[in-house]
Amino acid sequence: MEMFKNTESEVRVYSRAFPIIFNRAKNATLYAEDGTAYLDFLAGAGSLNYGHNNDHLKKALLAYIESDGVSQGLDMFTRAKYDFMESYKTVILEPRGLDYKMQFTGPTGTNCVEAAMKLARKVKGRDGIISFTNGFHGVSLGAVAATGNKHHRGGAGVPLGSVSFMPYCNYLGDEVDTIRMMDKMLSDNSSGVDLPAAVIVEAIQGEGGLNAASAQWLRDLEKLCKKHDILLIVDDIQSGNGRSGDFFSFEEAGITPDIVTVSKSLSGYGLPMALVLLKPELDVWASGEHNGTFRGNSMAFVTARTAIETYWRDDNFLKEIRAKSEILRDGLKAICDKYGSGQFKLKGRGMMRGIACQSGDIAGQISKAAFTRNLIIETAGPEDEVVKCLMPLTITEDDLKKGLKLLSESVDEVMKGQMSQAS
Amino acid sequence: MEMFKNTESEVRVYSRAFPIIFNRAKNATLYAEDGTAYLDFLAGAGSLNYGHNNDHLKKALLAYIESDGVSQGLDMFTRAKYDFMESYKTVILEPRGLDYKMQFTGPTGTNCVEAAMKLARKVKGRDGIISFTNGFHGVSLGAVAATGNKHHRGGAGVPLGSVSFMPYCNYLGDEVDTIRMMDKMLSDNSSGVDLPAAVIVEAIQGEGGLNAASAQWLRDLEKLCKKHDILLIVDDIQSGNGRSGDFFSFEEAGITPDIVTVSKSLSGYGLPMALVLLKPELDVWASGEHNGTFRGNSMAFVTARTAIETYWRDDNFLKEIRAKSEILRDGLKAICDKYGSGQFKLKGRGMMRGIACQSGDIAGQISKAAFTRNLIIETAGPEDEVVKCLMPLTITEDDLKKGLKLLSESVDEVMKGQMSQAS
Amino acid sequence: MEMFKNTESEVRVYSRAFPIIFNRAKNATLYAEDGTAYLDFLAGAGSLNYGHNNDHLKKALLAYIESDGVSQGLDMFTRAKYDFMESYKTVILEPRGLDYKMQFTGPTGTNCVEAAMKLARKVKGRDGIISFTNGFHGVSLGAVAATGNKHHRGGAGVPLGSVSFMPYCNYLGDEVDTIRMMDKMLSDNSSGVDLPAAVIVEAIQGEGGLNAASAQWLRDLEKLCKKHDILLIVDDIQSGNGRSGDFFSFEEAGITPDIVTVSKSLSGYGLPMALVLLKPELDVWASGEHNGTFRGNSMAFVTARTAIETYWRDDNFLKEIRAKSEILRDGLKAICDKYGSGQFKLKGRGMMRGIACQSGDIAGQISKAAFTRNLIIETAGPEDEVVKCLMPLTITEDDLKKGLKLLSESVDEVMKGQMSQAS
Amino acid sequence: MEMFKNTESEVRVYSRAFPIIFNRAKNATLYAEDGTAYLDFLAGAGSLNYGHNNDHLKKALLAYIESDGVSQGLDMFTRAKYDFMESYKTVILEPRGLDYKMQFTGPTGTNCVEAAMKLARKVKGRDGIISFTNGFHGVSLGAVAATGNKHHRGGAGVPLGSVSFMPYCNYLGDEVDTIRMMDKMLSDNSSGVDLPAAVIVEAIQGEGGLNAASAQWLRDLEKLCKKHDILLIVDDIQSGNGRSGDFFSFEEAGITPDIVTVSKSLSGYGLPMALVLLKPELDVWASGEHNGTFRGNSMAFVTARTAIETYWRDDNFLKEIRAKSEILRDGLKAICDKYGSGQFKLKGRGMMRGIACQSGDIAGQISKAAFTRNLIIETAGPEDEVVKCLMPLTITEDDLKKGLKLLSESVDEVMKGQMSQAS
Repeated sequence: MEMFKNTESEVRVYSRAFPIIFNRAKNATLYAEDGTAYLDFLAGAGSLNYGHNNDHLKKALLAYIESDGVSQGLDMFTRAKYDFMESYKTVILEPRGLDYKMQFTGPTGTNCVEAAMKLARKVKGRDGIISFTNGFHGVSLGAVAATGNKHHRGGAGVPLGSVSFMPYCNYLGDEVDTIRMMDKMLSDNSSGVDLPAAVIVEAIQGEGGLNAASAQWLRDLEKLCKKHDILLIVDDIQSGNGRSGDFFSFEEAGITPDIVTVSKSLSGYGLPMALVLLKPELDVWASGEHNGTFRGNSMAFVTARTAIETYWRDDNFLKEIRAKSEILRDGLKAICDKYGSGQFKLKGRGMMRGIACQSGDIAGQISKAAFTRNLIIETAGPEDEVVKCLMPLTITEDDLKKGLKLLSESVDEVMKGQMSQAS
Repeated sequence: MEMFKNTESEVRVYSRAFPIIFNRAKNATLYAEDGTAYLDFLAGAGSLNYGHNNDHLKKALLAYIESDGVSQGLDMFTRAKYDFMESYKTVILEPRGLDYKMQFTGPTGTNCVEAAMKLARKVKGRDGIISFTNGFHGVSLGAVAATGNKHHRGGAGVPLGSVSFMPYCNYLGDEVDTIRMMDKMLSDNSSGVDLPAAVIVEAIQGEGGLNAASAQWLRDLEKLCKKHDILLIVDDIQSGNGRSGDFFSFEEAGITPDIVTVSKSLSGYGLPMALVLLKPELDVWASGEHNGTFRGNSMAFVTARTAIETYWRDDNFLKEIRAKSEILRDGLKAICDKYGSGQFKLKGRGMMRGIACQSGDIAGQISKAAFTRNLIIETAGPEDEVVKCLMPLTITEDDLKKGLKLLSESVDEVMKGQMSQAS
Repeated sequence: MEMFKNTESEVRVYSRAFPIIFNRAKNATLYAEDGTAYLDFLAGAGSLNYGHNNDHLKKALLAYIESDGVSQGLDMFTRAKYDFMESYKTVILEPRGLDYKMQFTGPTGTNCVEAAMKLARKVKGRDGIISFTNGFHGVSLGAVAATGNKHHRGGAGVPLGSVSFMPYCNYLGDEVDTIRMMDKMLSDNSSGVDLPAAVIVEAIQGEGGLNAASAQWLRDLEKLCKKHDILLIVDDIQSGNGRSGDFFSFEEAGITPDIVTVSKSLSGYGLPMALVLLKPELDVWASGEHNGTFRGNSMAFVTARTAIETYWRDDNFLKEIRAKSEILRDGLKAICDKYGSGQFKLKGRGMMRGIACQSGDIAGQISKAAFTRNLIIETAGPEDEVVKCLMPLTITEDDLKKGLKLLSESVDEVMKGQMSQAS
Repeated sequence: MEMFKNTESEVRVYSRAFPIIFNRAKNATLYAEDGTAYLDFLAGAGSLNYGHNNDHLKKALLAYIESDGVSQGLDMFTRAKYDFMESYKTVILEPRGLDYKMQFTGPTGTNCVEAAMKLARKVKGRDGIISFTNGFHGVSLGAVAATGNKHHRGGAGVPLGSVSFMPYCNYLGDEVDTIRMMDKMLSDNSSGVDLPAAVIVEAIQGEGGLNAASAQWLRDLEKLCKKHDILLIVDDIQSGNGRSGDFFSFEEAGITPDIVTVSKSLSGYGLPMALVLLKPELDVWASGEHNGTFRGNSMAFVTARTAIETYWRDDNFLKEIRAKSEILRDGLKAICDKYGSGQFKLKGRGMMRGIACQSGDIAGQISKAAFTRNLIIETAGPEDEVVKCLMPLTITEDDLKKGLKLLSESVDEVMKGQMSQAS
C-alpha cells in the first residue's frame, strides 16, 4: 500500500474510500487479495452493467485473443468492428426506429463528448453550447466546460468559455418551467444568451446527484431545440446501455436526439470504448478531423457485440432490469419512509437510484459504514450528499436485496450516531 | 464493405487508404479475411511497438482474464496496477535516475496531454502554454490548442486560446537559433508573449513529419525553461517506449522533463492506456480533479507490465532496436541517394524514420503503390509529404528488409510515372 | 447629404432616422440648417441632461478657453481637474455618505466599464462577471461581453467569454424571484455558474427598454453580492446625473455599490468624459495599468464642475426634475390609458420613461410620425419596441408638455393606420 | 496636492513624474500655477501636434461655441461634421490617392482600434489578428490583446485570446527576415499559426520604444498580407497627423493599408476624437453595430477641420516639420556620439525620436533631471529605457534647440553620477 501512496499521484479517488487491494471479481462481487468478498454497488461507475467478467463476454473475448484477432485496428475495417456495427444497428437501432451513423472516438466518455460538441459547432457554425445545472460530461477541456462541478471546472486552469448553464428540470422547484425560461431568453434579442449550436443534457444526471428529468420536460426541450434550430445532444454515457430501464435513457420520453454519446457499459466488459451516434445529415466530418489512436479497440468491439447479442435480442433482460429496479426503489423508499420526511429523499430512475441525505457528511458516513459491511457504494451530487446505487444490472435478486439490507443497516448506524450527537 | 460506408461516420481515415477488412494479425503482419498477408509499417500508428498480439503479452493477458482478474478497476488499488507500477518504477525509472510520480488518466494520449496541461496551469497559476510548429498532441479541446495542424484546429469550432506557437528546432533553417528567439521574446516586457505555465514538445515530431530535434536544442530548451520558471512537458506518446532508440525519446539529450506524457505502446498490446509522469513536487492535484472512468483498464496494466519485464530488464532489446534502426536508415538513405538531392530527404531518428517527398501527392502515390505490394505505410507532415515508417520494434530483420525493398520498388514505380509525366 | 452617404461608413445610425443637417442647438431644441426647430426628446442619448449649450456651462467653458487653460492634460494634475474633484466630492459624494476614489478613464462610457470590469477581476482574482438580460454596457470587447444585445454581440467577431447572463428584475414575471434563483446557482457546487468577480447592473436599463429594477430587488442584489463575496458594479452611465430623479439611480434603493461607472451627462455639455467611482479599499491599480490619452479632457472638467455647482448645491433642481417626471409619467400614462390594456405599457422611472408598443414596427412608425411633427424621439428595447423619452432635465414645462402632445398625436396617427389596416 | 493623492485612484501616471499643478499652456509651454514655464516635450503623449491652445484652432472653437453650434451630435448629420469630412477628404485623402470611407468611433484611440479589429474579423470571418512585438494599441479588452506590454496585458484579468505576436522589423537582428518567417508559418498547414483576419502594425512604434520599421519591411508586409488574404491595419494614432514627417506614417513606404486608425492629434486641440479609415469595399458594417455616445464631439470636428485647412493645404508645414526633424535628430545624435557606442542609441523617425539608454533606471533619471530643468519628457520602451521626444510639431526652432540643450545637460548630469558610482 505504501508504494501506491508514494508513487501514485494524489489525484486518485476511489482508493481513498476503499483502501484495499482487489484482485478478482465476478458479477456483483469484488474480491480483496485475502479473499474477502465485497458486494459492488458501484460497478465501475456504471461501466459494468453486465457485471464483472461476465461469462458470456469472457468466452468470446478469450476466443478472440486466442485466435490472434486484430487487437488494435486504428479505424481500419476489421471483422470485429463489422460484427459490432451490424449487431448494434439491427438489434438496437432499427427496432427503436433510430437512424444514426456511428462514430468511434477515442475510447472514453469525455472524448465522445468532445466529438459531439465539435460536430455540433461545425454543423451550426456557432460556438455556444447550453448545458444544465449539475450536468457532468467529462473533464477534458471541451467537455469540462459543459460540466457543472466546481471542483472539476477549477482544475482547468483557464476560463471555460462558450458554454452557458441553464436550470435543469425542477431545479427551481415545480413552479418554474425552466424550458419556458430558456425559450424567453433565446427568443429575446438582448438577453445576452447567444443562440447555441447545441444543448447537451443527461436524461438522468449521474454525477450531479441522480436527478431524473421528467419525460415531459425532455419533450419540451426537444421542441425548444427544434423551434430555435439547436441540436439536441443526449449524453447517455452513464444512463445508457439499459441502466434507465430502457436501452437508451431517452426512450421513455419518446424523443429522438440529434446526437447521442455512448460509452461506459458499451463494451460490457469494462473495456474502454466510446461511440457517437449522429443523424446521417449531420455527418459533415472531414476525414480524420477528429481522430485518436485507440478508436479501434477490437476486444471491446467483441465484448460489446456479445453483450448485445446476449441481452438485447429479446425483452427478457429488460423485464429483469425493471423488476430489479422496483426492488431497488422499494428498498430505498423503505429507508426514506423509516426516517420521515426531510431526512432522506428518493432520487433517480431505473437501476440508477439513490437517497439524498441532509449533508455530504452524512452520505459519506453511510458509504463508510457500508464499506465496513463489505458493501462498496459511492456518493454523488453537488455536496456529495447522495448515496448512489449503481450495481450491475445482472446482479442476482439475492445480492440486490442483501446489499439493500446492508445499506439500510449502514443508514441506521449513522442515524443513531446523529441522534446521540444531537441529544 | 457497404455497411461500413453507409453506417460509419465520414470521419474515418485509414479505411480509405487501406479499404480491406482485416481479421487477424501477428507481429508485423496483418491478415485480410481472405488470408492475404500485409506487412505492417504502420503498427497502430506507433501503438504496437511490440508487434501485433505479442505472444509473451498474450499469454499473460489470457491468464489474467481466465483467472477473473479485475478488468475495470476505476482508480482503485488492484494487484494488476501494483505490479505494473512496481515494474515501471524499478525497471524503467530508477535505472534512468528518474524520480516521477504516476498519474493514470483516461486511457488515450490526448487525455494525458489534457491532464499535463491542466497540471502545469495549476502549478504555475498561468494559463499560457507554448507549443511548437508541426507539433501534434491530440484533438480534444485542450490538446488540440497545442496541435499545429490546421485540419484538426479547424475542427474545434471555437477559437483555440492560451497556446502560442514557436518555431521548432531548425524550423527557420540552421542559421536561426529558435531558442534564442524564444529567450528574447520571453525576456522582453512588451513582446506580447506572456510567460507560459509550460512548454510542450515532442523530441521527435511524429504527425508533424518526423522532425527530430537535436540534443543540443533540447538541452537549450530545458535551460530556457529553468531560466524563465516554465515547466517542460515532453510528449513521448509516439516517440516513447523504445521507438527513438532509447526507452524515452529525451534520454539522448540527457534532460529531465518536469512532466512526461506516455501512451500508445505503453500497454504493449494495443490496449488503451495512458500515463502522466510528474515530478513529485508538482503533485498538487486535488483528489479526483482530473478523472475518467477507464483509468483502471487492468488488462492494459497486465500487458504493460509484461512488456517491461520481457524487454527492458536488460539491454538486449535496445541493441536490437538500434541495429534495426541502422538498417532502416540505410534503406531509406539508399532511396534518397538513388534519386539525388532535392527529390527525397531522410527524416527522423531511431525506428521512427521516413522520407520527405517533394509533395504530398507523390508521398500519397508511394503509399498507394506500396499497398498494391501488400505493404501498409502511411504519410505524415504538413502536406502529408512524408512517407513514414513506424513498424513494430519486434519486426524480424527479414521482414524489415523485405518491407524496405517493397517501399523502394514503390518509389521507383511512382518516380517512373513522374518522369514520364514530365517528359 | 450625398457626401455623407458616400463617405461616412454604413455604421451610422441616427442620421438614418433623422436625415437632416443640424447646425445649432439650445436647451431642448435642435435647429436644422434652414432654421427649423426640432424639439429634442433624445438629448444626445442621455448625455445632455442640462440641455444643449447650457448658458451657465457655456460661460465657464468660454472663459477657460479664452484664458488658455490646459485643454489636454493627460492625467497630470491640473487646476481644472482639482476643481472638478473637489466639487464632486463635497457636493455630490459626501452629502450622500459615499466614500469613493475617482478614476478618470478614457472619456467614454464603454471605457469606464472596461476599467470597472478589469478592476473587479484584479481585486477578486476571478475572471467571471455576471450581467443581466437586456443590459447594455458598451461595445468594446470587454464591455460588449456584458451587453445583451445580439446585434452588438454579433459584431464582436469572437466568442464573448467570461460573462454570464442572469434574468433581470421581473424578467421571468412577478412570481419568479430572480435573486433567489441566482443565490441557488451560486450556492450550488455543481451549477456550472462559476463564482464571478462582480455583478454589473443598471438600476434602470436604458437601451434594454427602460426596465426599472425595484428598490427591493436592488437591495436583495446587494445582499447577494455580500453573501458570496462578489463586487457590485452599478452602471450609472445613462441613468445617472439626475436622470432617475435622484443624482445616482441607486439612491432610491439605499444601496452602496462597490464600483460605479459614470459618463454621458457627467461633463454636462456633451463633452466626452468618464469616471469610475471605487471604494478606497479596491484601489489596487498599479500606476498606468489602465490608461488612455484623453483621460484629462480639461474642458469637460470645467463644464462638469460648473454643472455640479449650478444644479446640485441645493435641492431645487431635484424638485424640478421630480415635478417634470410626474408630468412625463402622466402624459405617457394618458396615452396608454387611451388605448386600453395590451396596446401600450408604461415603462421606466424618473425622467427616463417611455411606452412599450406591441412591436418594433409600431414604435418605429411613432418615432417617424413624431419626426414629421419636428419631435426627435428614439426607440429602444430588444425589438426596438419602446418609444423612449430622454429629454433634457432642464427642458421647460411648456416644451415638455408640447412634446408630449406631439407624441400623443403621433401615436394617434399610427394607431389610426393600424386600425384601418386591421379592418 | 493632498486632495489628489487621497481622492484620485492610484492608477494615475504622469502626475507621479511631474507632481505639479498646471493651469495654463501655449504651444510648447505648460505653466504651473505659480507661473513657472515648462518646456513640453511630451505634448499630450502625441495628441498636441499643433501645440497647446493653438490660436488658429482656438479662434474657430470659440466662434463655434459662441454661436451655439451643436456640441454633442451623436452620429447625426451636422454642419461641423460635414465640413471636417470634406476637408479631410479633399485636402488629405484625395491628393494622396487614398480612397477611404470614414467611421467615427468613440473618441479614443483604443476605441477605433476595437472597431478596426471587429471590422476585420467580420469581413474575413476569422477571429485571429497578428500583432507585433512591442506594439501598443490601447488597453480596452479587444485592443489590449494586441498590445505587447506585460503591465497592460496583466491588467486584463482574463486570458487575452485571438491575437498572435510576431517579431517586428529587426526584432531578431538584421540577419533574420521576420516577414519571411511569417510567410513560412502562414504557408505551413501545421504551424499552429491560424490564418488571421488582419495584421495590425505601427509604422513607428511609440510606446514600444520608438522602433521605426523600414519602408522595405512595410512593403513586404503589405505583400504578405495580399498573398495570404489578410487585411493590413496600420495604427497611425501616435505616428500620424504629420508626426512621422509625412501626414501618414506609412506614406514613406508607399503602401495602402486596408484600414487605418487615427486619433490623438486628429482634433488638433487635444479634444477627444477618433476615426477609422476603411476601404469602401470593407464597409460591411450594419447600422449601429459599433456605436458609442461621443462619436459626434462636434467641437473636435471644428478644430480638426481648422488644423487641416491651416496646415495641410500646401507643403509649408511639412517642410517645417522635416527641418525640425533634422534638428531633433542631430541634437540626439550629438548626445549619442558624445558617449560613444554602447551607451545610447538613436531611435525613431521624423519628429518621433529618442535615445535608448542602457537601462530604464538611467532613462528615468534623465527624465527626472530634465524636469528639474523645467523640461517635461517621458520614457518609453519595454524597460522604459528610451527617453522619448514628442514635442509639438509647431514648436519654435528656438524652443526645440533649448529643449535639446536641457536634455543634453540632463544626460550629462546623470552620466556623471553613473561614472562616479562606477568608480
